[in-house]
Amino acid sequence: MINVTKTFFPPLKEYRKHLRRIWGNEWLTNRGELVQELEMKLKNRFKVPYLTLTTNGTLPIQIALKVLANGGEVITTPFSYIATTSAIIWENCTPVFVDIDPDYLTIDESTIESAITSKTTAILATHVFGNPCAIELIENIAEKHKLKVIYDAAHCFGVEYDGQSIFNYGDLSTCSFHATKIFHTGEGGAFFTQNAKLHEELFYGHNFGHKGPEEFYGVGINAKMSELQAAMGLSVLPYMEDIMEARRYVVEFYDRNLDFSRMQRLKIREKTEWNYSYYPVILESEDALLRSLKRLKDRNIYPRRYFYPSLNTVDFAGKIKMEISEDISSRILCLPLYKGLKDTDLKLIVDCI
Amino acid sequence: MINVTKTFFPPLKEYRKHLRRIWGNEWLTNRGELVQELEMKLKNRFKVPYLTLTTNGTLPIQIALKVLANGGEVITTPFSYIATTSAIIWENCTPVFVDIDPDYLTIDESTIESAITSKTTAILATHVFGNPCAIELIENIAEKHKLKVIYDAAHCFGVEYDGQSIFNYGDLSTCSFHATKIFHTGEGGAFFTQNAKLHEELFYGHNFGHKGPEEFYGVGINAKMSELQAAMGLSVLPYMEDIMEARRYVVEFYDRNLDFSRMQRLKIREKTEWNYSYYPVILESEDALLRSLKRLKDRNIYPRRYFYPSLNTVDFAGKIKMEISEDISSRILCLPLYKGLKDTDLKLIVDCI
Repeated sequence: MINVTKTFFPPLKEYRKHLRRIWGNEWLTNRGELVQELEMKLKNRFKVPYLTLTTNGTLPIQIALKVLANGGEVITTPFSYIATTSAIIWENCTPVFVDIDPDYLTIDESTIESAITSKTTAILATHVFGNPCAIELIENIAEKHKLKVIYDAAHCFGVEYDGQSIFNYGDLSTCSFHATKIFHTGEGGAFFTQNAKLHEELFYGHNFGHKGPEEFYGVGINAKMSELQAAMGLSVLPYMEDIMEARRYVVEFYDRNLDFSRMQRLKIREKTEWNYSYYPVILESEDALLRSLKRLKDRNIYPRRYFYPSLNTVDFAGKIKMEISEDISSRILCLPLYKGLKDTDLKLIVDCI
Repeated sequence: MINVTKTFFPPLKEYRKHLRRIWGNEWLTNRGELVQELEMKLKNRFKVPYLTLTTNGTLPIQIALKVLANGGEVITTPFSYIATTSAIIWENCTPVFVDIDPDYLTIDESTIESAITSKTTAILATHVFGNPCAIELIENIAEKHKLKVIYDAAHCFGVEYDGQSIFNYGDLSTCSFHATKIFHTGEGGAFFTQNAKLHEELFYGHNFGHKGPEEFYGVGINAKMSELQAAMGLSVLPYMEDIMEARRYVVEFYDRNLDFSRMQRLKIREKTEWNYSYYPVILESEDALLRSLKRLKDRNIYPRRYFYPSLNTVDFAGKIKMEISEDISSRILCLPLYKGLKDTDLKLIVDCI
């Protein structure tokens, strides 16, 4: 069976090496040595000033909204994973969808301003498939209207934009280290910011507001990453260059061998060093997609309709029409992409599409 | 150094045995085999109909409040860990404190009714130190006023009340499997309910509302436990009888050797099979407590002021006066209690108090 992705497992002995440290320290969570080491290594890797690891990739979005969006209207994209919209609603804010760019698949920055009202407090945009939003234009809008910008950068491990880590843009970025991601800690995530004061607020927010055992900075919840998760991150990290190289190979195979006369590939934004995180193709029609899916399934190959459905169509999200997002959601398929896919598998997939 | 508690580490080879299964399955999260096995084992152990494991012990309280408390006033205890109050505030409800019983240290059920208003939606009470609340009386009040009852049973692994697991009471109970708890998964938790419909709502809530990859039941977040956590639970579980026995020994040592003419011990509620989870002593005065703390600290022994401060005194929680809770918080100390404490350590602790 070939799925859209396959979790990378580091050699078990690598993980065991870190486990022995945990057993030696007799320390399993609450800012252990391994969590701090992984934070430091990622900070150095991305050259970001502030980063806090979290137990999954949704909690940092929730904490960011609690700290920055203040129950207001949050302008967001309908073309993302459900977590983006759910976090907004869960945190008592109102999602206000604007449509997406049909080539880059990120939020259509030209429609953001018309969606701003007196209740708007923030923009929550997704760098879809690791493809950056129109960062400078969004920054201008946010500055003009005094809005906060939160980037859901769940797909963005390793992406650079204009010469630096994409995590350095916006008021803050969040990332996911879920098992399906390029780099993972089983479940896991992080938030990144360049603002020391904001980082402090987010950090307290992720650990009950604790300022020592008996004092509190403010309201917080538990989003702490444990040592067992950090051990996985530390075990995967040394393989990132291999993983990226293997993914680049698959992406270039698809690029060379797929017939783009009747389908569309993802247009990567200028000034971007991409991370080969997903291989989406947009077919001619939903019928064409369903036919391709059928052919693939018959050969035990399971790509993923991703993102589908368009989030504006989900019951609890308001059901306002978003033409481009709904159209693309109905026709887009993410092809299998992971380290370990064989050429014969890739040929078979290309033939089925 | 002796701390108030020490995480139990199962033999590393036990954990490695489960790790090999994870590596074999190539599956790290999203309802893996180990998570399901641990759920089944705990369900059988406690004879509870519904239980879902979560990534920590606070998220199930948050999800419970979202599903049951509906942004209303939640009657709660000031004598608990900060998570109880923080979760209420985080989920846009209002905590309404009532004072505690000076002997059992649980919420004073006789004052609940006077705190009920038209906005009250739920009671969130803590079985403090594993000591049950006045369950029947609270149930009567809730029934009369049509309120939901959520028990923060973070301390309650293994507690039985009136012949069955304490997790079977109230609309639902939550538990914590944090590293400091008797049974743990590093970080972790669970919710328990006897109501099939409620369980379904909570379950969807803990996994983005997913009903299949493309359909949604409602708004949800990510509270999934990963396989790395479940592996820890499965490794600790076979040692629970040993752990309980060792803790019982320490508790009985304190019971026999401490001088209760000038301090108070915890009064366990009738009909309870307790779990030896904490050993709190209430000293004559805060001065007496600070003197004991000093003597212990000089010998490198660190008990914990727990719970301190009384939650009603925390800035963001309203600062309404709660006489008994504030008084007890200022005088209570949890003594070291874990498997592995030596008699000589215990004698030293008793001498210092």
